[in-house]
Amino acid sequence: MGIVTFVGGKEGAWRVTGITPIAGSGLGPVDRIQAIDSDGPALRSGSPASGGTWRLRGLASNHRYATRAELTALDAVQPVLGRPEATCASLIPIRKSDAWWRLAQDERRAVFGMASPAGTGHNDIGLDYLPGVARRLLHCRDLGEAFDFLTWFEFAPDQTAAFTALLARLRATPEWSYVEREVEIRLER
Amino acid sequence: MGIVTFVGGKEGAWRVTGITPIAGSGLGPVDRIQAIDSDGPALRSGSPASGGTWRLRGLASNHRYATRAELTALDAVQPVLGRPEATCASLIPIRKSDAWWRLAQDERRAVFGMASPAGTGHNDIGLDYLPGVARRLLHCRDLGEAFDFLTWFEFAPDQTAAFTALLARLRATPEWSYVEREVEIRLER
Repeated sequence: MGIVTFVGGKEGAWRVTGITPIAGSGLGPVDRIQAIDSDGPALRSGSPASGGTWRLRGLASNHRYATRAELTALDAVQPVLGRPEATCASLIPIRKSDAWWRLAQDERRAVFGMASPAGTGHNDIGLDYLPGVARRLLHCRDLGEAFDFLTWFEFAPDQTAAFTALLARLRATPEWSYVEREVEIRLER
Repeated sequence: MGIVTFVGGKEGAWRVTGITPIAGSGLGPVDRIQAIDSDGPALRSGSPASGGTWRLRGLASNHRYATRAELTALDAVQPVLGRPEATCASLIPIRKSDAWWRLAQDERRAVFGMASPAGTGHNDIGLDYLPGVARRLLHCRDLGEAFDFLTWFEFAPDQTAAFTALLARLRATPEWSYVEREVEIRLER
């Protein structure tokens, strides 16, 4: 099923450089994060972790909003994870409000933002930072986890300012008014 | 999280009157089915079952396709589960193909069928059988189950022919070409 578990603790290839609560309660301090993919060997990690201070689980699921045109545009420029130069990463767990989940599909899609020349939608903003920032979205709401989504980003050090700008633009969208818990974890390897 | 477990075995308020494999492999014969709701007491069951021949789990999640207009139309006529006269039920587990899950949101929605005067979409067909047939959709793809969806229907005996017609119409839609496993379980209490 492609479940990825992020174990925050003392082990793992990714060293934590900051954990910032953006909305709601944060996560306890940890030194390192290990990502374990149920479909394959541990991602960039030395050994499987059995402990850890906290664990976040998410799974790769089907696309929920993207149209074929949007997926085609994304696929044309989207980089893979694990590029040698991408030594910076960020893990951002998010929970949206009940009000979001009560919306109908067309209402959520409208808040998400349609592709527009103004470039103000979620996908438009993301496209502006490709191929510099690689991204992987995992779903966890239906797993009964504390968060609804985990997003993992990887980028080269010279893309750090661009990544920070990407986050600021996303957080300024109407969609973010539905985000009730968000933690920003920055990492290096 | 609202996980519902259907335990097929010798216990439960619902007596099995038929288990028919519609596509792909079927399910083993059982006498009764017990529905256990993690959020509340066992649904119409005497005691919690610990055994059973098979178990199917699903969860109530957010709507994935319905627009606000469609939800409003549904809510206006949709009956609740547990009506005293609804002594017939059906549990239909379904798995869709990888081809379905690789479609973009707009492509899946198009196959699902938009509301139309011709009344040929999934929602249009369902509306034709309301309020006679009560329905509850549970999701299980992201739980790692053998099926993607479990649909539970309840109706009075005099709605049996209408329910059979509903299934025939749904199975004749383009959407059903993506169904690779389907089992029809009929029940009475």
